[in-house]
Amino acid sequence: MFIGYSETETFLRNCRDAVIITHQSPDGDCIGAGFGLKDILAELGIRSRVICSDEFPKRYNFMTSTGAGEDFEPEAIIAVDIADPKLMGKYEEIYGTKVQLCIDHHESNKNYAEKTLLREKATATCEIIYDIAKYMGVTITKHCAMCLYTGIATDSGCFRYDCTTPRAHEIAAEMKRSYDINFAKINRYMFEVKSLGRIKLEAKVTELMEEHLGGKLAVIAVTQDMMKELKITPDELEGFAPLTIQLENTEVGILMREREPNVFKCSFRSADQVNVSAICQTVGGGGHAKAAGCMIEGSLEDAKAYLINAVRKALGE
Amino acid sequence: MFIGYSETETFLRNCRDAVIITHQSPDGDCIGAGFGLKDILAELGIRSRVICSDEFPKRYNFMTSTGAGEDFEPEAIIAVDIADPKLMGKYEEIYGTKVQLCIDHHESNKNYAEKTLLREKATATCEIIYDIAKYMGVTITKHCAMCLYTGIATDSGCFRYDCTTPRAHEIAAEMKRSYDINFAKINRYMFEVKSLGRIKLEAKVTELMEEHLGGKLAVIAVTQDMMKELKITPDELEGFAPLTIQLENTEVGILMREREPNVFKCSFRSADQVNVSAICQTVGGGGHAKAAGCMIEGSLEDAKAYLINAVRKALGE
Repeated sequence: MFIGYSETETFLRNCRDAVIITHQSPDGDCIGAGFGLKDILAELGIRSRVICSDEFPKRYNFMTSTGAGEDFEPEAIIAVDIADPKLMGKYEEIYGTKVQLCIDHHESNKNYAEKTLLREKATATCEIIYDIAKYMGVTITKHCAMCLYTGIATDSGCFRYDCTTPRAHEIAAEMKRSYDINFAKINRYMFEVKSLGRIKLEAKVTELMEEHLGGKLAVIAVTQDMMKELKITPDELEGFAPLTIQLENTEVGILMREREPNVFKCSFRSADQVNVSAICQTVGGGGHAKAAGCMIEGSLEDAKAYLINAVRKALGE
Repeated sequence: MFIGYSETETFLRNCRDAVIITHQSPDGDCIGAGFGLKDILAELGIRSRVICSDEFPKRYNFMTSTGAGEDFEPEAIIAVDIADPKLMGKYEEIYGTKVQLCIDHHESNKNYAEKTLLREKATATCEIIYDIAKYMGVTITKHCAMCLYTGIATDSGCFRYDCTTPRAHEIAAEMKRSYDINFAKINRYMFEVKSLGRIKLEAKVTELMEEHLGGKLAVIAVTQDMMKELKITPDELEGFAPLTIQLENTEVGILMREREPNVFKCSFRSADQVNVSAICQTVGGGGHAKAAGCMIEGSLEDAKAYLINAVRKALGE
């Protein structure tokens, strides 16, 4: 059942011993939402614990270092930023069908919880949680503000992407007026800092970029042989897809990774106009209009030729 | 003489045939301020012309394509985002001592104009111009909003840097509520798009990065021999200094470019704590706390050893 702020307030004020579930492969938004909500519940005198199927990456320590919470038998089960119980990882079995309150901003939310506060236009789940706290009149501590800012900033590419709402900017303005937080330092760690290995790998992978269709399509294809030569696994190439749309005239970028011999995982990015989800759907994939993916079988040359042709059609050429 | 909004309004409402000077090596803020102010004057029925010592780079076409303005003998001389008449380039001789109104946000403003509206805390000159228009009650057209947004976004690294004010976020929020502008597209062109040559050069230059002082200092040193090998000039390495502080533990980054045999131009970046301007001042350079520069003479090894030692001291080690 979908609910509004008033019912959410009622739930939060009356819950106790809450477990707050974040999604697997945790990112800035679910961690910020989890630890931000934990702070808000603490203000209400309610203890809670933030859990995740995976470890929280070290770079988010400034949010998680307050501790995930003590061990207790939970009464309230809350999920944040989780569109589908599958994304709970190892916690799906325990909590997948028992979530009482879900707070989320994903259009694709499966409505799996007893009560769901869904705001699909929100930049981030953290934007919704900030607004709940304001609605409830609960004090937002400095640590809570840092968590909620981080979620909004990371999900919006630091206010760069389409999904950035006016509200996201308003919240950032309110926070900058109210808290002595080193926002620039958070942004540096979220958006600029990389490992030396990552920097060198980006450089090597970029060297592999090819332009097609007069520069409108950029492809980075990495075969298993190349990975052997670069001494990397396909997983180490996660997050490299945006590198494919760095060029000025590029409309579509594709990162192709050979996961098994002649099986390519393809990650698409669209700079502006082309709906890459539609292209991926023609071969059983999917995703969002500007970021999608699919698997393709065949030789590198055949797979590439197929994709180039599909993009050519999508460009209306 | 420094003035406030009221006197600025009086000047703008009563001027005619204005020339608006932007600084040499024009960036998003001075171009946005120039063309934004031109739009505001047009709303008041005042014709103006935007001039610059250098050509406006092509990537800013979405602002400049409305045209710099017709040719006329100017009566009013306005400078935007120019701290020092020297930065007018070839126009210094003609207008350097004749500026009637300067609108600027640089602390280092030389107070060279008859009247100066200086807001040194503002993120960008475009932030000030937006607020003047609001103060005056002049309509801000869609094109004007695009210009002013671009200046605020580019000078703040898309709301990433320390200089980002709450007001910058509020203006972005107001614009997103009021205009049908493809902000994400502007951001892509300002912050993501690079030329293929630039991407490959960044990759090569990154390969040269060395870590010192246990990773707290990163140095990229490019000698004339290396430039010959990479087939580049020192000027092509402009804007590469931020690459030196990409690593997580890096406190200080230095880009060293050998401009003449044994003469190194050194660009410093500080991630957070160290005042690199103070380091540069010890050898006659200067700048801001987080971005500064100096020239050093000597062999590469001697120059590097000197800088490493200076940074070690600044780190209190």
